[in-house]
Amino acid sequence: MKIAIAQINPVIGDLVGNAQQILTAAQIAVELGAELLLTPELSLCGYPPRDLLLNPSFVEQMSQQLWALAQQLPDKLAVLVGTVSPNPHVEQGGKPLFNSVALLEGGLIRQVFHKRLLPTYDVFDEDRYFQPGRDTNHVLIKGVHVGISICEDLWNDEQFWGRRSYEVDPIGEIAALNVDVIVNLSASPYSLGKPHLRENMLKHTAQRFNQSILYVNQVGGNDDLIFDGNSFAVNPDGEVVTRAKAFDTDLILVDCLPNQRRLLPIEPAIPTPYLHSTDSELWSALVLGIRDYTHKCGFRKIILGLSGGIDSALVAALAATAIGPDNVLGVLMPSPYSSDHSVSDALALARNLGIQTQTIPIQPMMQGFDTALAPMFAGTDFGVAEENLQSRIRGNLLMAIANKFGYLLLSTGNKSEMSVGYCTLYGDMNGGVAAIADVPKTKVYELCRWLNDEAQWQQENAFDVSALSRASLPFSHAPIPSHIITKPPSAELRPDQVDQDSLPPYEVLDDILERLIELHQSIPEIVEAGFDPTTVDRVAHLVKIAEFKRRQAPPGLKITDRAFGTGWRMPIAQQWRPQASDRVGIPV
Amino acid sequence: MKIAIAQINPVIGDLVGNAQQILTAAQIAVELGAELLLTPELSLCGYPPRDLLLNPSFVEQMSQQLWALAQQLPDKLAVLVGTVSPNPHVEQGGKPLFNSVALLEGGLIRQVFHKRLLPTYDVFDEDRYFQPGRDTNHVLIKGVHVGISICEDLWNDEQFWGRRSYEVDPIGEIAALNVDVIVNLSASPYSLGKPHLRENMLKHTAQRFNQSILYVNQVGGNDDLIFDGNSFAVNPDGEVVTRAKAFDTDLILVDCLPNQRRLLPIEPAIPTPYLHSTDSELWSALVLGIRDYTHKCGFRKIILGLSGGIDSALVAALAATAIGPDNVLGVLMPSPYSSDHSVSDALALARNLGIQTQTIPIQPMMQGFDTALAPMFAGTDFGVAEENLQSRIRGNLLMAIANKFGYLLLSTGNKSEMSVGYCTLYGDMNGGVAAIADVPKTKVYELCRWLNDEAQWQQENAFDVSALSRASLPFSHAPIPSHIITKPPSAELRPDQVDQDSLPPYEVLDDILERLIELHQSIPEIVEAGFDPTTVDRVAHLVKIAEFKRRQAPPGLKITDRAFGTGWRMPIAQQWRPQASDRVGIPV
Repeated sequence: MKIAIAQINPVIGDLVGNAQQILTAAQIAVELGAELLLTPELSLCGYPPRDLLLNPSFVEQMSQQLWALAQQLPDKLAVLVGTVSPNPHVEQGGKPLFNSVALLEGGLIRQVFHKRLLPTYDVFDEDRYFQPGRDTNHVLIKGVHVGISICEDLWNDEQFWGRRSYEVDPIGEIAALNVDVIVNLSASPYSLGKPHLRENMLKHTAQRFNQSILYVNQVGGNDDLIFDGNSFAVNPDGEVVTRAKAFDTDLILVDCLPNQRRLLPIEPAIPTPYLHSTDSELWSALVLGIRDYTHKCGFRKIILGLSGGIDSALVAALAATAIGPDNVLGVLMPSPYSSDHSVSDALALARNLGIQTQTIPIQPMMQGFDTALAPMFAGTDFGVAEENLQSRIRGNLLMAIANKFGYLLLSTGNKSEMSVGYCTLYGDMNGGVAAIADVPKTKVYELCRWLNDEAQWQQENAFDVSALSRASLPFSHAPIPSHIITKPPSAELRPDQVDQDSLPPYEVLDDILERLIELHQSIPEIVEAGFDPTTVDRVAHLVKIAEFKRRQAPPGLKITDRAFGTGWRMPIAQQWRPQASDRVGIPV
Repeated sequence: MKIAIAQINPVIGDLVGNAQQILTAAQIAVELGAELLLTPELSLCGYPPRDLLLNPSFVEQMSQQLWALAQQLPDKLAVLVGTVSPNPHVEQGGKPLFNSVALLEGGLIRQVFHKRLLPTYDVFDEDRYFQPGRDTNHVLIKGVHVGISICEDLWNDEQFWGRRSYEVDPIGEIAALNVDVIVNLSASPYSLGKPHLRENMLKHTAQRFNQSILYVNQVGGNDDLIFDGNSFAVNPDGEVVTRAKAFDTDLILVDCLPNQRRLLPIEPAIPTPYLHSTDSELWSALVLGIRDYTHKCGFRKIILGLSGGIDSALVAALAATAIGPDNVLGVLMPSPYSSDHSVSDALALARNLGIQTQTIPIQPMMQGFDTALAPMFAGTDFGVAEENLQSRIRGNLLMAIANKFGYLLLSTGNKSEMSVGYCTLYGDMNGGVAAIADVPKTKVYELCRWLNDEAQWQQENAFDVSALSRASLPFSHAPIPSHIITKPPSAELRPDQVDQDSLPPYEVLDDILERLIELHQSIPEIVEAGFDPTTVDRVAHLVKIAEFKRRQAPPGLKITDRAFGTGWRMPIAQQWRPQASDRVGIPV
């Protein structure tokens, strides 16, 4: 039996459109001789539907759409579709829905299988909506014994992780039945390095249980989450039989024979290779996240402020790649504190990218606010209030243009800034989506250097550009002017200001931040790792008091395992005093 | 045995400060002859601690603080303290912590009990952190057999609700042991009418199981959540023996004898009565929410814009009540589109409230932006972009003053506006906390009328002002000028504009919104209830497309069962097309 994997990019809640995507994939699958088609987790509504699930009419429409789809699908094809289904025993306690997979075959919903392990960490809230399934999921499809699992069901291999996350072991239960193949319908969000981790985990599980596994992942950006695709098939010996594209829709096939554990490749036999570096992976993720947020929200054009700095340079390059340079407008808004190079660098960047620009000096508006506030501010020193004013004038101009012409504003702040609050709420934080809010400043530099090198390399090796292992770049030469990369970072909100007046060097800051935020290290632990105690105390304090800004930030594209956003749930009015650096080793 | 209930107001994460609150209550309890003291759920860290719980050092500090507290407490007093405790079986699958109650006695942690039912709806994420306890919780304290439950453990009475929410029935299990009293340590957030619902539910449970119940609730505002206190004791016949204050800290006592089901009151024998109306309840909730957000974040003064409209009038009155009129600054920012009465009404309000004002006309700044944008905007009509500009100039002025002098900015938008997006992101939405973001516009009117009437009544019945059943008002006469209540609502962002140019009448709008948002009704259901189909379609569409604004809104004080905020988790880039009004009765 030939099995096709439809790595689709659903739009959340677009039941008709998503059903159409599945139908189109089904027609292609049939043409290619497939008898079974797999789609991602909750493929009918897209993942994550979140509180749309609280509307009974949404659930009802999904059910109707599932029936309609069953009747529209090609007769000879069995299809596994991700959907929700009602919990018939809800009156006895429990959640009203299951996160399910429906087997559609011969115009009918033949059987429904329920997800057993429901993640509740990070961005996941599945216990909010779903009851865990209790049955071992397996079924005979055209003579092939298929074990069925949904996403998290596979993420509980205590041999791989060193511990279990759930007491129940759905994969072990399926493997005990010696099925012909285990399929896993997923919607697994991207983070740096996760595609490799995921594949290593599945190789381990395949070998451990002597079962082949077909893994199908959603692709596309949904608000803050980016799904990377990278669906694949792995045999019991850990061999990857086939692999779908990263960060793009795809349809791949394998052959699966009854009573044979091994899946067989179908031409082309070579699995799509992974993107060749972490940077190209990250670049592709951000491009997809921007493109999908823009288009799924109904925008066609992007606007952003160009400061001449490296953050806006990177975001402009990403935006130009995501939706085409003709659809991107960069706005330069120099102030009296702006350096000459802030304008010249920004214009050079825009030329390189082929995007349009507008230049609006903000001094007249600064003057207007200064005059208006002079009576109240008399006798006070120039400070943060005055700095923020400039940033907010710029934010206001950008929003006015965005409102006037229906553009999507991208904010350009990086994770380091967002962490310590080195950004202006209602100013440079403005935007519909924060493109690099989860990218630390040191990584911003790395990615810009990579981009320039990669564009250069692709130009010099034109024959290789189409190779799928490299990110597709629309630039014929290094797009980021080198001065943007080499000059010291500055907010330019007062004369001769540089970031390092207020912050430790970014190499130090980012290291401390990773320890605090991603690794949950205590202050004494970080100090013991060799960092200056005063600096660590100060950074921890800044992270805490910037919470009110982050709460009002736009969704930021998530690329780490601990992003600010839907998976970051921190109280604002809190007064936790972490153990201070000077109390290392002294019990409280 | 005399039992004391400490209805404390903890600060999230302030382990030392919260322990001190418990210690102080313990000393008073001992003086009053109590042998057992009850404190709220997670009283040591405050509820909800959210992702602070992901820091191992936070959990470790809590454990150390619990030991320290056990040693500091009076010897003769047993104390139940809410804390977290580690799950020793985490390696076999499960969450790392329990939501627990520790029995401190004689300098030791005598026993620890775990919460069994973990809520995951609305604002609750307890499965994110906690493993459910499996044991029936009960213990003998000084000869009295005490059944122990934690908050949600009590919210599963299928006779009261008509259905179970959980399969497990912790209260039934405890009642089967025929304990002398069931205690419930809670942190149950306020919503309109919830104090009565909660008491009715507990009366039902007490009668059903023939058990007396001691209910202790947290009090205070924590970000968007307001905890109303209202702790009480109820006997098996449903009689309320004693009741603590609403929206304030308190310490109450009851007597509990072994082998007697009934709790006995201790003087004063009359339970504190409930606030005498829903409006006084709502008013007190909002006052507490504002005061605690302000003080727990370290602010002493509040700033807000005074438009002369009813929303800012209400928020100003709330702020003046919460932290004193001397600590509130109202800023008037008239534009050429502002009516004369916008200034005169605002000034009259400020005089009534006794708050300071500043007036800053915004025309010069509008001019500055208009000039700067003229080249780009040439040939376009005055529209939303120009309207938003004014709102954002005001937002910028307010933030500049707030930043300069360290004030907390309150935003003044109501729930109706937030629902349909009739508000400006980065403009009037600016603020650290949104005081009335969960109060529909019709309720804003109702509350202002109540406020004026109540202030008048209290003035005329001065002898009765100290009665605890009425909200404490600092006003000697009706504070809201009547013209603010009677004039048609207007954003005044263009000449002669009124809200009803863009929106249905608020009575209609609020009714539709309640059906859509709180009741999850479908469009056809709302139309069938008698609303105009086009209006319903349009309102539903507006609610959907305003999601990007709400995502960036400040925390809004929650007073309904379905507020925008931590319990509202809606995707932005979604394209659900709800069944349209013109398809009523026609299957899809």
